Amino acid sequence: MARINQNYIKLQGRYLFSDIGKRTREFIAANPDAPIIKLGIGDTTQPLPPAIIAALKEAVDEMADPSSYKGYGPEQGYDFLREAIATSDFQARGADIQPDEILVSDGSKCDTGNILDIFAQGANKIAISDPSYPVYVDTNVMAGNTGPVMENGQYEGLVYLPCNPDNEWTPAIPDEHVDLIYLVSPNNPTGTTINRARLQEWVAYALENHAIIFFDAAYERYITDPDLPHSIYEIDGAKECAIEFRSFSKTAGFTGVRCAFTVVPKTLMGTDEDDNSVSINDLWTRRMTTKFNGVSYPVQKAAAAVYTPEGAAQVDEVIQYYLANAKTIRKGFQEAGLTCYGGMNSPYIWVKTPGSMTSWDFFDLMLNQLNIVGTPGSGFGPSGEGYFRFTAFNTQEKTEEAIARITSFDWASM
Amino acid sequence: MARINQNYIKLQGRYLFSDIGKRTREFIAANPDAPIIKLGIGDTTQPLPPAIIAALKEAVDEMADPSSYKGYGPEQGYDFLREAIATSDFQARGADIQPDEILVSDGSKCDTGNILDIFAQGANKIAISDPSYPVYVDTNVMAGNTGPVMENGQYEGLVYLPCNPDNEWTPAIPDEHVDLIYLVSPNNPTGTTINRARLQEWVAYALENHAIIFFDAAYERYITDPDLPHSIYEIDGAKECAIEFRSFSKTAGFTGVRCAFTVVPKTLMGTDEDDNSVSINDLWTRRMTTKFNGVSYPVQKAAAAVYTPEGAAQVDEVIQYYLANAKTIRKGFQEAGLTCYGGMNSPYIWVKTPGSMTSWDFFDLMLNQLNIVGTPGSGFGPSGEGYFRFTAFNTQEKTEEAIARITSFDWASM
Repeated sequence: MARINQNYIKLQGRYLFSDIGKRTREFIAANPDAPIIKLGIGDTTQPLPPAIIAALKEAVDEMADPSSYKGYGPEQGYDFLREAIATSDFQARGADIQPDEILVSDGSKCDTGNILDIFAQGANKIAISDPSYPVYVDTNVMAGNTGPVMENGQYEGLVYLPCNPDNEWTPAIPDEHVDLIYLVSPNNPTGTTINRARLQEWVAYALENHAIIFFDAAYERYITDPDLPHSIYEIDGAKECAIEFRSFSKTAGFTGVRCAFTVVPKTLMGTDEDDNSVSINDLWTRRMTTKFNGVSYPVQKAAAAVYTPEGAAQVDEVIQYYLANAKTIRKGFQEAGLTCYGGMNSPYIWVKTPGSMTSWDFFDLMLNQLNIVGTPGSGFGPSGEGYFRFTAFNTQEKTEEAIARITSFDWASM
Repeated sequence: MARINQNYIKLQGRYLFSDIGKRTREFIAANPDAPIIKLGIGDTTQPLPPAIIAALKEAVDEMADPSSYKGYGPEQGYDFLREAIATSDFQARGADIQPDEILVSDGSKCDTGNILDIFAQGANKIAISDPSYPVYVDTNVMAGNTGPVMENGQYEGLVYLPCNPDNEWTPAIPDEHVDLIYLVSPNNPTGTTINRARLQEWVAYALENHAIIFFDAAYERYITDPDLPHSIYEIDGAKECAIEFRSFSKTAGFTGVRCAFTVVPKTLMGTDEDDNSVSINDLWTRRMTTKFNGVSYPVQKAAAAVYTPEGAAQVDEVIQYYLANAKTIRKGFQEAGLTCYGGMNSPYIWVKTPGSMTSWDFFDLMLNQLNIVGTPGSGFGPSGEGYFRFTAFNTQEKTEEAIARITSFDWASM
């Protein structure tokens, strides 16, 4: 009898985006001419820049010619890409990361889920911010690192780190001991960032507790403030306590192209049952070489083009475009008298709903009165209740039109 | 203290291909002018056919234009590809498989490893052919489905199904009860196939035991014998007891492009702790939508081109090219008086070493005397000892030259 992984039974249904879709479809059916604008989707919309298109085409041409055709590549990624990443993303910022500490993959969603493969099931205390990207929680449930779900929607056994205006949406160091910690900066959904001093505190905590930080920096390219760290390895000691997740999805429009990477320093150690130190880089390399067969060659060539002078400049232009949208949204809500966070070093704007309005009440208000679709903050965890996420990924025209509606709405009546 | 997955400590080093590389490099260093020919590598060498190149380029052009740019696609794959697969690979052969039973991925290596995520750890008796593709065993070790390694190189807790000339390299139905069974046809490394009658026996066994068969058909396109099944779903009852793994790697030269898929029928059920039936398709869909973000859009367009009339004809030409090489190798060894298997519906030829020669002795003979590199059968498991794998993936010229050396060698002296 084929026994299934019982942990999957604990998973709650994921209704957030299907509920949003359902309510939106129903509204459109009843109001077919409503000029709906979507500011909810966390997906890129601007085309790939010319340097990346050129690199893709060149690589496709190589695949057509027997003398340059590429079969299997190294599972960890081609050296040309790992070297470009190490040099440009890390060494250039003073972080001493080497190419063999970089493992190229097809996405951060895969990486943040798969990383749990190499850690003991149920033996680590795991801390996750609330609100957060739902994949962190779900993959821990699947891996058997939690108990059943509780009445408040949280899972037994996880340590939730509440984020709120009082801690500037940056999780506070927990009173209890934890072993694995998810930190995200710039944050999804709140759009806020972790500054150098706070990150240094977390690194100190992790070193003291022999804990490992999973640092998700998928949105680092949206950082404009020169004082903010882009990588956790800009912090002393992080190479002994942190894995970093990076992605080309939001930085270079690769959501449909698929390329990302993990940084696993050779100095990072875990502990086995006999209290021996074990290299995390060795374990992750073994995991990736056994259960993965490398990223598509043309995709790796495209990713490498992000590091050429032309590619970098073109990518920056797209980022500036999204950041301008973010500024428009942030400014609009501020003018409307609503409190909002993020939107400065991030494509996400996190808005406090007026009065005691719930996230879903606000969703209905936005949809029905203003024909704007966003994402209820409660979908990212209990601490997201009373908040709402907007994204900067629509076009400039649509974004400006949406904000014109928002600023001309009578918010005082709410 | 971050505790690591202790099961990784059980894994043996994987020295097969690095040992091959090391011995080969040392030989070349000592004999720099030796005309080495590699018939060991299981990787495609012929370029992508024009229809696939054209599809890739068209998709890249779409990514350059805001009106056709694609961000995130469905995690399970685009409908255009799932429909083409269901129609051409299954319905056309009389197997009633629907598009929503197909989940597109970036590789069969990932799929055959990741599938274990949805099954209970340590609660299933797992049967694996010996010899076999090492990933089946290694991923079960990592997932905690085995005990430690034993003296013979096998892992405690796994049921090894010995394959040998007596059973025509097709595993016999085990005497004991097992829950999960790996079957591979055409086989890697033996190049042999499972015929309809034998496959029907396995399906009957699985149905009776509520077991699930993992059917790896990555090489199905090499089948030329019209009596051999290409899919397990050509067998009645298989939709209630089998998952099938397919790949574009060896069928369409996608080893460096990355696309594959699993077939998980909606009628396939597993059992939870409370003895309830649970849909395996639901579990796998949940796994893939949570821990995976879809295959690169241009790659999916390229895969769809394999199902166009031009694409299919061009892909068939490449397959014929490799099959001609396989025939050359098989014929050569037969002329030389050696016993061999496979090479008829498969790109692999499995040669019995002369006399009592070990797999590694034969490796050294081939390298030193004939300057040909192949793969020792013992690297695929204990039952592979005394055998040797050759592949048909080199060029026609090199393959013919290698076989000329083999047929002119004095085998009688061995």
